[in-house]
Amino acid sequence: MKGNVNEECGVFGIYEPEEGQIAQIVYHGLVALQHRGEEAAGIAVNKGRVITCDKDLGLVSEVFDQERLSRLGTGNMAIGHVRYSTSGCSTKENAQPMLVKHIKGQLALTHNGNLVNSSQLRRELEEQGCIFHTTSDTEVISYIITRQRLVTPSIEAAVEKAMDILDGAYSLVLMSPAKLIAVRDPHGFKPLCMGRIPATGAILFASETAALAAVGAEFERDIRPGEIVVVEAGQVRSITSHCDTEKRSLCIFEHIYFARPDSKIDGVFANDFRIEAGKSLARNGAVDADIVIGVPDSGLSAALGFAEESGLRYEIGLIKNKYIGRSFIAPSQEERADMVHMKLSCVVPAVRGKRVVLIDDSIVRGTTSAQIVRLLKDAGAKEVHMRISSPPFMNPCYYGTDIDSREHLIACRMTIPEICKFIGADSLAFLQVDAARDILARLMQVSGDQVGVCTACFDGDYPTRVPEHYEKNRFETMEVST
Amino acid sequence: MKGNVNEECGVFGIYEPEEGQIAQIVYHGLVALQHRGEEAAGIAVNKGRVITCDKDLGLVSEVFDQERLSRLGTGNMAIGHVRYSTSGCSTKENAQPMLVKHIKGQLALTHNGNLVNSSQLRRELEEQGCIFHTTSDTEVISYIITRQRLVTPSIEAAVEKAMDILDGAYSLVLMSPAKLIAVRDPHGFKPLCMGRIPATGAILFASETAALAAVGAEFERDIRPGEIVVVEAGQVRSITSHCDTEKRSLCIFEHIYFARPDSKIDGVFANDFRIEAGKSLARNGAVDADIVIGVPDSGLSAALGFAEESGLRYEIGLIKNKYIGRSFIAPSQEERADMVHMKLSCVVPAVRGKRVVLIDDSIVRGTTSAQIVRLLKDAGAKEVHMRISSPPFMNPCYYGTDIDSREHLIACRMTIPEICKFIGADSLAFLQVDAARDILARLMQVSGDQVGVCTACFDGDYPTRVPEHYEKNRFETMEVST
Amino acid sequence: MKGNVNEECGVFGIYEPEEGQIAQIVYHGLVALQHRGEEAAGIAVNKGRVITCDKDLGLVSEVFDQERLSRLGTGNMAIGHVRYSTSGCSTKENAQPMLVKHIKGQLALTHNGNLVNSSQLRRELEEQGCIFHTTSDTEVISYIITRQRLVTPSIEAAVEKAMDILDGAYSLVLMSPAKLIAVRDPHGFKPLCMGRIPATGAILFASETAALAAVGAEFERDIRPGEIVVVEAGQVRSITSHCDTEKRSLCIFEHIYFARPDSKIDGVFANDFRIEAGKSLARNGAVDADIVIGVPDSGLSAALGFAEESGLRYEIGLIKNKYIGRSFIAPSQEERADMVHMKLSCVVPAVRGKRVVLIDDSIVRGTTSAQIVRLLKDAGAKEVHMRISSPPFMNPCYYGTDIDSREHLIACRMTIPEICKFIGADSLAFLQVDAARDILARLMQVSGDQVGVCTACFDGDYPTRVPEHYEKNRFETMEVST
Amino acid sequence: MKGNVNEECGVFGIYEPEEGQIAQIVYHGLVALQHRGEEAAGIAVNKGRVITCDKDLGLVSEVFDQERLSRLGTGNMAIGHVRYSTSGCSTKENAQPMLVKHIKGQLALTHNGNLVNSSQLRRELEEQGCIFHTTSDTEVISYIITRQRLVTPSIEAAVEKAMDILDGAYSLVLMSPAKLIAVRDPHGFKPLCMGRIPATGAILFASETAALAAVGAEFERDIRPGEIVVVEAGQVRSITSHCDTEKRSLCIFEHIYFARPDSKIDGVFANDFRIEAGKSLARNGAVDADIVIGVPDSGLSAALGFAEESGLRYEIGLIKNKYIGRSFIAPSQEERADMVHMKLSCVVPAVRGKRVVLIDDSIVRGTTSAQIVRLLKDAGAKEVHMRISSPPFMNPCYYGTDIDSREHLIACRMTIPEICKFIGADSLAFLQVDAARDILARLMQVSGDQVGVCTACFDGDYPTRVPEHYEKNRFETMEVST
Repeated sequence: MKGNVNEECGVFGIYEPEEGQIAQIVYHGLVALQHRGEEAAGIAVNKGRVITCDKDLGLVSEVFDQERLSRLGTGNMAIGHVRYSTSGCSTKENAQPMLVKHIKGQLALTHNGNLVNSSQLRRELEEQGCIFHTTSDTEVISYIITRQRLVTPSIEAAVEKAMDILDGAYSLVLMSPAKLIAVRDPHGFKPLCMGRIPATGAILFASETAALAAVGAEFERDIRPGEIVVVEAGQVRSITSHCDTEKRSLCIFEHIYFARPDSKIDGVFANDFRIEAGKSLARNGAVDADIVIGVPDSGLSAALGFAEESGLRYEIGLIKNKYIGRSFIAPSQEERADMVHMKLSCVVPAVRGKRVVLIDDSIVRGTTSAQIVRLLKDAGAKEVHMRISSPPFMNPCYYGTDIDSREHLIACRMTIPEICKFIGADSLAFLQVDAARDILARLMQVSGDQVGVCTACFDGDYPTRVPEHYEKNRFETMEVST
Repeated sequence: MKGNVNEECGVFGIYEPEEGQIAQIVYHGLVALQHRGEEAAGIAVNKGRVITCDKDLGLVSEVFDQERLSRLGTGNMAIGHVRYSTSGCSTKENAQPMLVKHIKGQLALTHNGNLVNSSQLRRELEEQGCIFHTTSDTEVISYIITRQRLVTPSIEAAVEKAMDILDGAYSLVLMSPAKLIAVRDPHGFKPLCMGRIPATGAILFASETAALAAVGAEFERDIRPGEIVVVEAGQVRSITSHCDTEKRSLCIFEHIYFARPDSKIDGVFANDFRIEAGKSLARNGAVDADIVIGVPDSGLSAALGFAEESGLRYEIGLIKNKYIGRSFIAPSQEERADMVHMKLSCVVPAVRGKRVVLIDDSIVRGTTSAQIVRLLKDAGAKEVHMRISSPPFMNPCYYGTDIDSREHLIACRMTIPEICKFIGADSLAFLQVDAARDILARLMQVSGDQVGVCTACFDGDYPTRVPEHYEKNRFETMEVST
Repeated sequence: MKGNVNEECGVFGIYEPEEGQIAQIVYHGLVALQHRGEEAAGIAVNKGRVITCDKDLGLVSEVFDQERLSRLGTGNMAIGHVRYSTSGCSTKENAQPMLVKHIKGQLALTHNGNLVNSSQLRRELEEQGCIFHTTSDTEVISYIITRQRLVTPSIEAAVEKAMDILDGAYSLVLMSPAKLIAVRDPHGFKPLCMGRIPATGAILFASETAALAAVGAEFERDIRPGEIVVVEAGQVRSITSHCDTEKRSLCIFEHIYFARPDSKIDGVFANDFRIEAGKSLARNGAVDADIVIGVPDSGLSAALGFAEESGLRYEIGLIKNKYIGRSFIAPSQEERADMVHMKLSCVVPAVRGKRVVLIDDSIVRGTTSAQIVRLLKDAGAKEVHMRISSPPFMNPCYYGTDIDSREHLIACRMTIPEICKFIGADSLAFLQVDAARDILARLMQVSGDQVGVCTACFDGDYPTRVPEHYEKNRFETMEVST
Repeated sequence: MKGNVNEECGVFGIYEPEEGQIAQIVYHGLVALQHRGEEAAGIAVNKGRVITCDKDLGLVSEVFDQERLSRLGTGNMAIGHVRYSTSGCSTKENAQPMLVKHIKGQLALTHNGNLVNSSQLRRELEEQGCIFHTTSDTEVISYIITRQRLVTPSIEAAVEKAMDILDGAYSLVLMSPAKLIAVRDPHGFKPLCMGRIPATGAILFASETAALAAVGAEFERDIRPGEIVVVEAGQVRSITSHCDTEKRSLCIFEHIYFARPDSKIDGVFANDFRIEAGKSLARNGAVDADIVIGVPDSGLSAALGFAEESGLRYEIGLIKNKYIGRSFIAPSQEERADMVHMKLSCVVPAVRGKRVVLIDDSIVRGTTSAQIVRLLKDAGAKEVHMRISSPPFMNPCYYGTDIDSREHLIACRMTIPEICKFIGADSLAFLQVDAARDILARLMQVSGDQVGVCTACFDGDYPTRVPEHYEKNRFETMEVST
């Protein structure tokens, strides 16, 4: 159950041969990516080489009503973005697409991921007199690309040069007056794929294949790590000079939790990974029990896999209240209810008197898990055996996943038996890092050492240099002088 | 999948011995009942015998932000309501609680259900000079009760008398300056239950047990058909003069679709009914197939039951996009997407190359089913065998369920083989009415003829007199003269 | 300067021979009447005998945006209302038009004024089983008319009968499926006039002539006290059975303050009355001074009259900030500013070193006047001689003007010299009641005893029976039993 | 009457020795400056050297409700801005304060005026790799200042250097982590003044003295053209190196129309200028007439002056509807009303049968004037003699006043007699440029050639180099390449 692990973004882009109501398509693509970021949404439309942008805090369907969508007008290229972020004034500024004007005209940019060298780049830019309106890496990327544009013959050449400078995770979809460009960093930390609508010849880019399906497009291929794909006047070109320069390092949390189960990322459906993770847990964490249930929605596939492998019966034991969104008023201290009681309810007859295997995707602080275990026991579960379809979180992520700080991560403070006791479960087991890698290798049909996945949050094995200390809001609090 | 069948309401009421932030508890209870009505929400709070009410169109969390909830103030009694209704100006007026003033003071009223004699009662009232501000039955009920109050010594006596006059479905929670009263019509068409919060001694009424659990209350019992429960100064009294006067006729659609799976209605958990319905379908509609999938969310339990009974593998084959709410802008005609594509996506590897048994809760017009079958076939399903966990709709409902009109009901126009062809399935079967009744009897541990369920929408066997012709908006279009 | 005296309403109605965008015309008429009520606004449109209504809290331009106005649709009759009221939950219910359904169909009603026997009527209605959704007199009127409709052959006959029962102030514009009707109570407390748009043949009713001018209509005549004007199928009929049954008693505060200066009420332009009031003050309150200034906006005409009569120079000495509306956040206690400082600013060079005659329309509590005098003295005025273009408030109004309660009225607690001292002025004089009546007589070209004006708030001479005690929210707090 | 001449901005800043609810004071100051810009509003608060900013489209009281104001928190320095601008997406970005981060920390900036060399500066910056988020001059200024900061020891030194580069009109209030700084360009095109709140020791800057009075502050002095005033830790320092380097060129339209009449700009109250302008018109455009009336609000003072000088009677002949704001829905083509009818109404008895002198502040296209003349004649005015308290517009303004383009300016296309005929007046006269300058000289008590006023929009005598062609949205439409 989503606790304190948050994705940062989803990106979407489309080129249509004919000018049309293109903002509407981006809207529907973004709704399909909404799970990647619920805090802000934006769309930029290119009509006759002039780019118009609108963005705001809120869900896609909250930001855009029909009137506001219509005001974006028609066009033949557009990009969009959904964003996770913390609340507050600065957030609005950080919403994307970022639309800037530079010496060669407008540039609109959407970004998923985090740079590891953005503090250093930002400082260098400031020393050259650059000013920043936001606290986001995306503005750093805008600067790097547009400054390269001064000394390169085209926007794609500028992007290519910029990739020599940028370090970290970045899946970008960007738009100049004449071109739509998709870029994936050489490690391929974040997913990015390409599709087409056969009937219209439209070319699309999206963080997940699910967004292609939602707008009637067919999946064509993943963007390769390090690849730049340029769409200009309906022609697609690929620049591969940064491909195969780094070890592939797809964020494994995409498969564990972030991506929709129906999305296929780098050749593997998230649902398949999760079912296999459940099976692995059944093999390595077998337990004498009556039923298997999953914490909805992300734990369901793994629960099904566990049930199949173990032969235990799969049940729907927990129901999620789908009406609890950003504007929900949480129960107060005095009330006899907590957020877990509001979000989840127990199907009593399914668990009463049963020994239950409970599958969730992760444990962060442990408090939510403790409340869910209590919910089941209050409903009459005789035993609750918790199985987690990911390894324990031990390290910060520098690539765009907002994991809680180390002092809050329960696995940094407790052994597994201690965690088990803390959450009140009768037994507890996690997926092994190696098992996760093996599953992916098998599903990708490659050998284990070729699988190319980032598991740094579990094992500390970072694929890049990393900053010396973790700074979530690093540009908010920097030293100032006058 | 919810198509054109809609519940009308959810009701909630609470008495607290100590004055407190009672509106907040109603808010959380209503969020747990939100699935019973997404169109309007309202809360009335009683503080020191003065009732304040606030209501509006929208989800509970859209109508009430913290400020608006706070403005309702503290109190020691409160009632709330969620409502399904059609759009338009008059709807706002029809939102509940209805708060009226009469000779004895204020009366706040929430109602789930439809009267069958409201047209006649309304005409009689108008002939006596009554005026109406709304088009809802609830205002008719308000009149009947308050007019009885003129000739009875108490509000509960007035309610008792009113029950001689009212005919049809009504689960009411009402509040006078000094009393909180729950009423269920003698047929018991709609659910209504009672609970307590042990720690505070609070007494609660709700349409479903899930709302009790959400606010930390314990289920105590169902309100009996025909019963009036009066809470006054912390004492609970029951008036049973209308009990056992009519054949019990619980709307079977509560178990099939309306109620949350974790709710227990008249002794039976909805989830258990659905699992058994799936099993019955497996026994009576067996098919040679590879996997069983359910249409989320309401078809999942039946799918699980079908899988268990048939021995076929249960899979998660369809994913529901939870971000599509009232404000979502539907795809336009030109886009390569439809609402089913936006709402549902297919987990391709789960269904590709498979012979799929697809379980849904109902078929109304057939168009949605056809789109879902197409979605699966486009994803590579070899065969799609549709099984419906309810009998075919053949008749209108006069008790508060908004079933489509007969000319739209596919089962009124086609045979089952014709429907099967229309939706593009390879086979199709429905739950039998008798099977549904038998399941309920078995789960209630009574004999089949004692089960007391209304199945009129399937078999036309109405438990009451019914109006001569169906009038959905019967007070909107009546003849006028000047 | 508007302090604690508030008008209750403005009404507007239109019949158009051809169906058209009639809500738009009502919108513009209501904007011209906005000064009569800033708290709520509403419009009801009659299209093909079906009436649709929309209303809400807020200014006309806040309640209705283009979309909401369009949703009201086209029609050939419509009525509208602006309302002053206190804040709170019940207000929304009290917004008008009130749209009810009775035995003969729909009735939409707008009302300006207050009944003096509404408590008694309401009690009688409740004893007959009537229920009330609001706390307004308008609902009482709706009942009285619709109940008479049961025993009369037409809506206008019902209105005629109802006038035997209703006592007090009521200017009504109402609409049945087929008729538009304007009614003015026999005393003619509140203004009501009729106009036509020559080009289209439209017939209009409005509280003030200014609303006719705003929509391009020509003033035709005032509705007579006691008259019922019926528009049906383009024909205008007048029912005069209640005319000349009571002494004409136009609220003098319409001329003093409420009405726009460009409105002509019962034959007299408000601006002319105010100029003459200023002249009268100059004759009866002459003072040795340098300049005359008025408190904007309502004191300016009287100041001009004073200047002309006295020969002193008229200056613009105070400027009003027009951006301070309902949503303005008032200065907090700690700030060095108060509401008068925000609302008014002083043109320093106009008053510095001058002996100033300051004209305002009324004094209620005296605190605002004291702040204005201070503002002038701080700006360097040597003397401030205050002249008030109305007599001192001594009594409550039962006819719809919200005057402060007696314990707050400074004139009930202090002599004129004491008030003068309290507000810090160098001298103070009020308009005499007789002078006010004489001015009106002269402008109406009738003798003083024929002038027909209500001055009860000044002299206690009420034209009707009045309730024994003043009850502003009389239906909010009534005794309740259960 | 305000037609197509628009001011661009109002600025406000405050330093408080003690941390407090400073955003509230800025709010009240901005409400007093609202007439200088109704389209967008913003506030930036400095608390403990960290600056938080909030801004949006709308009036001050629309952008900020109590909650949003509270979220800005407490602080001891703050700046604010109101802005006029055209509608559309880019506007939101252009709202101020502009908050940027540079090598030395945050910088918040508010600006009134327009640069004449911003296109050139922007191009140079872009050539150095700068990117722009907005289309406003303010971002150019931000760059110039922050880049100078790289090579200067302090922010005020950077501002001083920047003034060597910036050319045109700029009254700035800016805020670094530790300093509040006010700057006025060497020509002094736009007003800027300084005040103090004696009780607290607060130091304030504002576009107009009226904003000081509104928050209880005392006017101290005008900022000198070319002066930089630095407030740091409660100490005030003045940097005067750019003073007396250019000819003083205060925009004369501040006195004619922009400024509130109670504001004193460079030693002269706007009200005094307007009265004298009216007198000058009376001397140079004498006419045989009965009454003098002004178009509210800006024509009233001049009308009073005209009346006094001519001996004709001053009357209130036109009333302005104060409820017509940004959200007002204008009458449609078919309605018998136009915007002038909605905005203005005629006090019929004041003008009927009279020969009227009508004073307005300017004529731009002539259509509004024509409608006003028609309004008076329809009301029965026998003659309408129009007198304009400014010279005819002949030239664009490059300094921040949004005058219509030349092809729309009636004075560029017609002689005065032709204009007179076009607007339907019986005679027409304008204030002479020399007369305007003489009035100002007299009120400033300087000789005519020392008066230092910009009259370029009338006589084309620009105090600076000007761009070769006028480009209102010059950064919106620039050539782009890829």
